[in-house]
Amino acid sequence: MAKKLISREENYSQWYNEIVIRADLAENSAVRGSMVIKPYGYAIWERMQAELDKMFKETGHENAYFPLFIPKSFFSKEAAHVAGFAKECAVVTHYRLKDDGKGGVMVDPDAKLEEELIVRPTSETIIWDTYRKWVKSWRDLPILVNQWANVVRWEMRTRLFLRTAEFLWQEGHTAHATKDEALVEARQMLDVYTTFAQNYMATPVLRGVKTENERFAGALETYCIEALMQDGKALQAGTSHFLGQNFAKAFDVKYLSKENKQEYVWATSWGVSTRLMGALIMTHSDDQGLVLPPKLAPFQVVIVPIYRKGEEMEMTIAKGKEIKAQLERVGIRVKLDDRDTQKPGFKFAEWELKGVPLRIAIGPRDIQNNTVEMARRDTLTKEFIPMEGLQDKVLNLMDEIQDSLYNRALKFREENTSEANTWDEFKDIIANKGGFVMAHWDGTSETENRIKDETKASIRSIPLDYDESEEGKCIFSGKPSKGRVVFAKAY
Amino acid sequence: MAKKLISREENYSQWYNEIVIRADLAENSAVRGSMVIKPYGYAIWERMQAELDKMFKETGHENAYFPLFIPKSFFSKEAAHVAGFAKECAVVTHYRLKDDGKGGVMVDPDAKLEEELIVRPTSETIIWDTYRKWVKSWRDLPILVNQWANVVRWEMRTRLFLRTAEFLWQEGHTAHATKDEALVEARQMLDVYTTFAQNYMATPVLRGVKTENERFAGALETYCIEALMQDGKALQAGTSHFLGQNFAKAFDVKYLSKENKQEYVWATSWGVSTRLMGALIMTHSDDQGLVLPPKLAPFQVVIVPIYRKGEEMEMTIAKGKEIKAQLERVGIRVKLDDRDTQKPGFKFAEWELKGVPLRIAIGPRDIQNNTVEMARRDTLTKEFIPMEGLQDKVLNLMDEIQDSLYNRALKFREENTSEANTWDEFKDIIANKGGFVMAHWDGTSETENRIKDETKASIRSIPLDYDESEEGKCIFSGKPSKGRVVFAKAY
Repeated sequence: MAKKLISREENYSQWYNEIVIRADLAENSAVRGSMVIKPYGYAIWERMQAELDKMFKETGHENAYFPLFIPKSFFSKEAAHVAGFAKECAVVTHYRLKDDGKGGVMVDPDAKLEEELIVRPTSETIIWDTYRKWVKSWRDLPILVNQWANVVRWEMRTRLFLRTAEFLWQEGHTAHATKDEALVEARQMLDVYTTFAQNYMATPVLRGVKTENERFAGALETYCIEALMQDGKALQAGTSHFLGQNFAKAFDVKYLSKENKQEYVWATSWGVSTRLMGALIMTHSDDQGLVLPPKLAPFQVVIVPIYRKGEEMEMTIAKGKEIKAQLERVGIRVKLDDRDTQKPGFKFAEWELKGVPLRIAIGPRDIQNNTVEMARRDTLTKEFIPMEGLQDKVLNLMDEIQDSLYNRALKFREENTSEANTWDEFKDIIANKGGFVMAHWDGTSETENRIKDETKASIRSIPLDYDESEEGKCIFSGKPSKGRVVFAKAY
Repeated sequence: MAKKLISREENYSQWYNEIVIRADLAENSAVRGSMVIKPYGYAIWERMQAELDKMFKETGHENAYFPLFIPKSFFSKEAAHVAGFAKECAVVTHYRLKDDGKGGVMVDPDAKLEEELIVRPTSETIIWDTYRKWVKSWRDLPILVNQWANVVRWEMRTRLFLRTAEFLWQEGHTAHATKDEALVEARQMLDVYTTFAQNYMATPVLRGVKTENERFAGALETYCIEALMQDGKALQAGTSHFLGQNFAKAFDVKYLSKENKQEYVWATSWGVSTRLMGALIMTHSDDQGLVLPPKLAPFQVVIVPIYRKGEEMEMTIAKGKEIKAQLERVGIRVKLDDRDTQKPGFKFAEWELKGVPLRIAIGPRDIQNNTVEMARRDTLTKEFIPMEGLQDKVLNLMDEIQDSLYNRALKFREENTSEANTWDEFKDIIANKGGFVMAHWDGTSETENRIKDETKASIRSIPLDYDESEEGKCIFSGKPSKGRVVFAKAY
């Protein structure tokens, strides 16, 4: 039997790493900071992609693909943007290798690029350079484009899924005739992300606006969703930016309006990444391993036949196939684990570690009784249920587990959201309890930075759904505040 | 009215470029040799991806993701592989930019990598470095993995879709316990590609084996499918490689067999890329523009309402919506072009250029008569047909058009496949008629190279489906030949 996971209590960070590795989600590669996403992990990501892609298309977006490489000079065109990304850019300087005469290869010094190319950390610059060619008149607007791509940000401290040098994501880039339309788009995509997080990932998220400090490099406004992990730390799960006319001005993208005037175009961009995998893992998993919401689980049900070799084996596997076919007919994703190389106990532990929502075991006695043994991953409870009506039972359980995971996570967040009204109270909560802390802030970057320096807690957002009408005094400076903001330590 | 395309007759190469640009498939970017795939082009690629992905999964493969960057030293480990790819590698040497003090940015010389990273031109090396960790015993085999990814090969002369510095593709990488199993896999994937090309792209392909000269760098055997374009040139549409134990030996990937012996693992890799877009365009399109097979068309039917403003507009658009809903109920992809900013003639030309298989026009008279006007893109024929039974009619036409495109392309290929029995005959056909030329060859690289030098025709493959039993004499050297091979000029 494989060794148990370390518990969350004992070492949360190691627990996370062990789940990622042992549930076959991802692993480190030979390239510093770059991960390999393994088939089981990738299957979850594919389900996320499929659902998000559907939602993007339903809101009128189309996919396209832009170059991986961005000419270095493009980065200087938007001042805030380059300041934000310059320190973490992978740079291509040469385009050829040659024999080094020692059995290896070396970079060919004769193949130096005139202008270095940056491996995209995000694609605003190359895309707005392209949009200049696409936009002439108001008839060409809006442009509602999304791209599924890999990006590279040279992070110094990396963690699987949460922070990697290369990651997979989608980046939407839209162009609009008016400021209002762009603002509506940015908010709409925040709603799409919220719906996805809550309905598919079963992860409650807090919607808000970033402070100037935490804004995307080049944005006028960054909307975000923040989720709370089980260790009381926040994780930014998605962002949607209102970019104003910054990139249109940097890349000279104008359109002829209905009124026959040349106007700069308004922009948004928005993205979520494989980081969502980290959020998913840390929201639901327990000391037995991964827990997956049914809507994103590659297998929603695993069937394990229990037998002694011979006739029992044939009979239970045949029954397993029958149940599999029956469940698949109503759209359930089923794995029949009929490996003859592993014992049932091993299989139980493996699928528990991999977070399959429901396990069905069938032995000869079950066949006789016309029942199956069913185990729920979320509650770790078991029951015998009759074969008759199994389809409906499983379909209902899918919904029930999905809802129950969401409600459990919501309850956790509610229990771990506090109000702080004094500086001492604030420090105490951040240091001891963790979680989201709603507190008054005077609105200055200076105060925000000093609070972060002293407590490691940052302002996650100025929340959109929290009562903003309440005025008060900044917990740190005592100066007037227009409403509470959300503080937390964050990933 | 927009200007007509140049004709194939007049300038085939320009005709191709004009279709790619004007049908909104792709365009050149600011980065040398890298293209932007526009939404309409990307929608076709997405359909290709979806169908291929389904076929890969049906044959037991899973998707995964491996790093974009490959340490330089990995390339030296397989001698033939590095020789094949070293000359076209983009190399990352630095990981940071800094302010250049002149309002721009420069590469930070303090941020030089100890070992340079290669942007993957293909992923055998990084994947086999990973497989070493995944494989211990025969129980871990086979590994049947595919990756959808971008790759970079620094081509000096590029053409949209056909040859670009960065392109999108899938690369399958499988690991097997035995040579036979790997050979069966390589052949199976060639069959998958063949089925896809013929059934979805409506493109007939010739299946064969590459000569040593044309083999993938690191393969023992390269299987390929070759399609014939309308200008008589061949296009390699997909390859599947039997890699033997080359990469297992280079990366020390061994397994413990059932007989308790350490054995090297056997490998295959196989891929198709956005190059298929080029094949699709050049197989079917005509002087009016793109022609798409219904199975890959983003829109299979476009509906254009014909009206004078006012009541007619309302009425014809309402009817258009009704027909759209009706067709969508049976799974047909429909675009209703209700733009009020363009005239019907403009719309007709646009959708013709974009290759939509069927166009339905509805005017007030049609509504009165309970008919529609239907135009087929492949034959450019029109007919009035009754509204009643429209669904079935359209469904049938989808199959008919799909088949008819395939048969037309097959007929073209048959008419442009010749046998040559003397050197003069061979040169004459290559220079004047083009197409596939079946001729005897003595089996040596020397002869192959000399024929290529003199005529620009290369051996596309030793065909699998052509009668190989016929012996003869090499058209160039007169030496004995075991069977005919396929020569052609190629993209």
